[in-house]
Order: sequence, then structure tokens, then C-alpha cells
Amino acid sequence: MTAPGPDERRARAALTRLTEPGDQQVGRWLRELGPVALLRGLTGTGPPPPGARADRLAGCHARAATLDPDADLAAVTRWGGRFLCPGDIQWPGQLDDLGDARPLGLWVRGCPDVRLWALRSVAVVGARACTDYGSHVAALLGAGLAERGWVVVSGAAYGVDGAAHRGALAAGGATVAVLASGIDVPYPRGHTELLDRITEQGLVLTELPPGGHPTRSRFVLRNRVIAALTRGTVVVEAEYRSGSLVTARRARELGRHTMGVPGQVTSGLSAGVHELLREGAQLVTDADEIAELVGAIGDLAPPRRGPVVARDLLDTTALRALEAVPGRGGGGTELIARNAGMGRERTLASLYELQALGFVERRGDLWQLADAASTSGTPKPPGRRPPARRGGA
Amino acid sequence: MTAPGPDERRARAALTRLTEPGDQQVGRWLRELGPVALLRGLTGTGPPPPGARADRLAGCHARAATLDPDADLAAVTRWGGRFLCPGDIQWPGQLDDLGDARPLGLWVRGCPDVRLWALRSVAVVGARACTDYGSHVAALLGAGLAERGWVVVSGAAYGVDGAAHRGALAAGGATVAVLASGIDVPYPRGHTELLDRITEQGLVLTELPPGGHPTRSRFVLRNRVIAALTRGTVVVEAEYRSGSLVTARRARELGRHTMGVPGQVTSGLSAGVHELLREGAQLVTDADEIAELVGAIGDLAPPRRGPVVARDLLDTTALRALEAVPGRGGGGTELIARNAGMGRERTLASLYELQALGFVERRGDLWQLADAASTSGTPKPPGRRPPARRGGA
Repeated sequence: MTAPGPDERRARAALTRLTEPGDQQVGRWLRELGPVALLRGLTGTGPPPPGARADRLAGCHARAATLDPDADLAAVTRWGGRFLCPGDIQWPGQLDDLGDARPLGLWVRGCPDVRLWALRSVAVVGARACTDYGSHVAALLGAGLAERGWVVVSGAAYGVDGAAHRGALAAGGATVAVLASGIDVPYPRGHTELLDRITEQGLVLTELPPGGHPTRSRFVLRNRVIAALTRGTVVVEAEYRSGSLVTARRARELGRHTMGVPGQVTSGLSAGVHELLREGAQLVTDADEIAELVGAIGDLAPPRRGPVVARDLLDTTALRALEAVPGRGGGGTELIARNAGMGRERTLASLYELQALGFVERRGDLWQLADAASTSGTPKPPGRRPPARRGGA
Repeated sequence: MTAPGPDERRARAALTRLTEPGDQQVGRWLRELGPVALLRGLTGTGPPPPGARADRLAGCHARAATLDPDADLAAVTRWGGRFLCPGDIQWPGQLDDLGDARPLGLWVRGCPDVRLWALRSVAVVGARACTDYGSHVAALLGAGLAERGWVVVSGAAYGVDGAAHRGALAAGGATVAVLASGIDVPYPRGHTELLDRITEQGLVLTELPPGGHPTRSRFVLRNRVIAALTRGTVVVEAEYRSGSLVTARRARELGRHTMGVPGQVTSGLSAGVHELLREGAQLVTDADEIAELVGAIGDLAPPRRGPVVARDLLDTTALRALEAVPGRGGGGTELIARNAGMGRERTLASLYELQALGFVERRGDLWQLADAASTSGTPKPPGRRPPARRGGA
């Protein structure tokens, strides 16, 4: 797939404002017509898309005048962000598993490479109104996964989500918040500061256009992005019929690992997790068990030892970070940032990218060169290793 | 298999004193020589069993003079008990799955029919030093299983075992204690009163001869009897490497259901259960889920509706209890006992037997006639129903 041209990018940006996330009819039209013709068809400046209902078209026509994708794109750029489209180098290919429900594009803030981070990511989700046990475990898992070099993805909600993000941040690790609102609409309000920290140290992304407000259905649809983006979803606490279970079941449908943290059978906030476990989800009790499961997938995972792209394909920032990693015993993020003469956040983002590419490995607080990183120049492609191979880290 | 004669019964009783439970060499000799010749061979009044080591024989010879099976059998009869042997009508056939490790016999106190009770039994086991959560859940499960007409089997230990027994007793239900000591040696001492209540309302049984004291290995070997006797084993709380896990794994080897109750991942007393669940045991959170699982086995289970033996094969006590069950809506144990003019314990024992035979069903506090109980005279044999049939009760 080639990178989209400016017209196509502008059309996709406009379509995120004109349509709701995950609309499969929109996905089909997009596949058949392309974004530019679809936008014209919906806004009345071209032939209407096949089978479009009159009321739908009328609604789109009414909103056509308010569309200003250039302003949206400019605003996001001003905020240090970007709008990613399918075909972009940073586009996370896993989202393509959603088929016609694939996001039209992703509004992103934060410097790391979305595609590379997603390759080594795990979702940790759960109840907003969780117990102390739930937030304690979520924070432990967030920190433990970060210490093992995994990117912690969640929904920035109160409760389990927030605790998981905070755990990853506290361990100096990588975390991604997937919002059900616009990139400029911190939700919940009480997590404004948390989202600022995630933007600095990690990634915040959403399908919704700037200014978009969360609704019940947008939360549910957001969950499919979390499920598809990551290599597995861990539910920490959830009542029956909770949104976290939707994420987990979606993850299972997508062939991702579905995991649950058990709790007391007398706790309603563990009832949903236990239901999930009885349906076949994997019971996990700590970050090691999670890492072992998601690390065992072959299809998405980069090899655990040695790089997957040639060193001379690295961008200059990544190369600077790689050259700053001490050759023996490794070093902490601060040291490597000093060696590289780069900011801490930029260095951390690069280190996670280098890890996804197989050049470095994280062990607790230290980053080390991967076994073959210094020698290999012509690596194997990521998809070719045997799927049954178990991660050794 | 025919019922053993008096010499054979006496020999088996003596052998329970001369050998340790679960000794597979003893089991093989027993199969080849029979109990009478084996006893003679071990005590020096007949040719020694093939391959018997000299030190073993010397040990047996030394203890031969102290054997007095008639006194043991008389004592147990005096205590209102009995010594059951393979071939006896009440012998629980499931124990034969233990092969050469099958008990030589069972010393039993309590009036119910061991075979019939075992047919509808579930083991609830777990840590001695359990948490409040563990004892709470064990009591809930004990009561809930009893209310659903299941016999709760456990090891009479402190902690989970005791709570499970007490839960069943409190619900006016059936419970069986399998001891690692002699039938006259209440262990632990603090459970003397509990064991007295179980003897009155249920069954206490052991492989060990009167006066036998528990040892570490006897506890482990006792667990195989619990596993084999029941249709499934539920572990409520257990640390890594605990005895309850041995019971559960033994249950799995024997093709029984292995179940675990989850707890908080931060609790060491749930760590063993979680390990078991990660190995493939079924996660269960209440008595309904347990009953659904064990009720679904076809091979051991009597049909859930309608009797499995003809009415005229019932003994007079069972027939009296059956005739005392009100025809519409059923009745409680007390009422049925009054109607039958029998004691409460004897009535309860008969009702559980009638349930195992398919004549009655327990629903909460009430006993009702099973759908076909009043009409059927020529029932289907128990082994012929489709194994996949799910229990409806």
C-alpha cells in the first residue's frame, strides 16, 4: 500500500468528522470508491455512494458546510500531533484485521512510532469503579509489562485503565491511551494531567476528529481499536456485561490473546472476568505470565534476538539512540539520553522502537544491545519465524 | 464380583493393619494370591508372596502376633460401624479406578449407603490455614452443593475442609469425611465434635485400621481416595505444592472433574489454585457451576429423572422413606421423617440414597418425587444414557 496523497488524507480527515467510527458501510464504500469520491458523494458534490439512504445523505449534506479538514490537520500539527492514514509508514497494520470497520485514520499525539510500538503492545483494561485490589493489580501489571519492554495500551478511563497507564509511566515505560473523544478533548476531565504525561512519554490516539466528544457507542467502538492494536488484552476487573469484556471478546475474535486476572468470587467486580475465564480466556496472575503468552505469537512479533531491519534503514534519531546504548551491561534511559544528547522522552520512544526492531532489549531498568544487534545487516523478515517459538526474555 | 466370605474379610481387615494404604505391590499380590493367602504369606504361615523382600517379611512377621482382625471388626461393629470390602453391595465401584492402589477395604461409620452416596458426591478441599475468604467460600459451596442434592466429601481438616463439611451440615445435607487415621481417632482433635456430627448425619470412612494415626504420607495417600470416590474435586484455597493440589491432579488423572475457586492474585493461598486453573482445571465460582459440571458426566451418574432400579428392589427403610415423601410439592426432611416414623438421620440417609437411585430430587430444603418415580418399574441401567446429557436440576 502506498502512502496517501494530500487529497486523500484531507478526505479521510473530513470523513472522520462526517461518519461514526467502525461503520462497515462506510468501510465498504471506501474500499469501492476511495476516500475522495466517497467524500464528494456524501457531501453532494459527486454521485451518491451506492445504496446510500436518503436521510443519511441529507444529514451529510447538512454537515458538509462545517467540514474544514485543512483546519483540523493544521490544528493537530500545531499541537505537535499528526493524522495517520492506512499506507503511512507508521500505520499499525494490525488494524487492517478489522476489515471494513478499520479506522479511517488515527489522530495521534506523541513522538513514538505507532506501528513499532503497537508491535510490542498489550492492552490492560477494566472497570472504572474498580476496587483497591483492581487498581493495585493494574498498576503492578502496567509497571511489570513496561519493565519487560512491553507497551501498555489502555483507554485512559478512571479505575483500571488509569492505574495501568500510571504503572507503566512510573516504571519509566511506554504507554498508549486510545481515546473515545477528540485528541484535544481530555476525557475524563480528571485525567487531563495523566493524558498530558502520556502525550509526553508515550502516545495518545483516537479515530475521532478534533473536538469530538465521547458517547456510549463511541466507547464501545473505541474498544475494537484497543483490541486490534495490541497482541493481547488483559481484563483486570469487570462486572458482567462490562465494556472491558467487549474489548476482550473482540480481541479473541481477532485472534489476539484474551487474558483475565482472577479475583474473589464474592466480588461483583471480578464476576465478569471469571465469566471470561470460563469462556476460555487465559488466567494470568502477573506480568511474566502475560509476557510469556503474548511473546509466543509468531505472526506479529519481531524476533526476540537480533534486528529485523538493516541498521542503515534506521532514522537518524533511532541510530543516535542505538549508538548511545552502552555495549556491556547496558544502561538506563537517562544515561542513554545523555550519551545521545537527546531529550528523555525522545530517547525512550526511540529505544522502544529499537526494541520492536530487535536492536535492543529492556531488562528491568536497563536497556541492552540485543545479541545480534551489532553484527547483523541483512535480517530475516518478521513474518518468517516459526509461530510456535516461545519468547525467551 | 461376589461379596467376600468371612475369612477373606478378616484377612483384608488384618492387611489394613499390616500394610500401608495405596501400596501397589500389595495390590498386585492381592490380585494374584487373594487376601487369605497374602496374609498367610506375609505373616509366615504360608509361602511368601513372590518377590517379597526379606526385611519386609521380617517386619510383617514381627507384627503378626499383634494382629487381631476379629477384635478390630468387633470394635467397629460396637461403634455402629462396619468394614466394607470390594464385592460388598455398598462398595463404591469408583475406587476400582485406582487399580492396584485401590483400598484393601474401608472402615466406615454412619448409616448411609457408601456406594449410593459416592455416586452423587463432590470433593471440596483446600488449605488448612485458609483465609476468611477461603472458609467463607468453602461453607457457601458446601451448603449450596448440599441444597442441590450433592454429597460433600472432604478430609475433615481445619480450614477449607471443615468449612465445607459444616456448610453441608448446616444446610441439612449430606457430607462424608475421609480420614487419614483410624475411624476411632478423631483428627484433628479440635474437630472431634464435627466428626461426631458427620458420623450422625453422614459418613466417616478410612482405609486405616482402628487406632491408626495420621502421618504425612497417609494424608497424601488419603487424597487419592477422595479423588477417586467423587465425581469431581474443587480446590478452594491452596498454596503452591499443597496437598489439595495433589488431590485435584489425582482427580484429573482419574478422569474426574478438576475445579478451582479463584481468589486474589496477591494472595499466596490462591496461588496454588491459580496454578491448577492455568493447567486446565475448570474455574468455578458457585455451587451451580460445580453441579453443572459434575452433573454432566454420564458414566457414573444415575439419570437425573426417574429411577435406575425397580422400586421393589429397595430395602424396607428406603421404601418407607419414599412412601413418606408428599406427592405434590414435596416436603422437608423433618416432615418426611415424621411421616415415615423414622429418625431424622436415617431418613436423610435414605433420601440421598433414593436420590442417587433416581426416585427423589432435592430442591433447596424440599425433597420431591422425581418425575418418573411413581410409575417406572423397569428402569434403564445407569451406564446407558448419553454422556453429553447436561443435568437439568
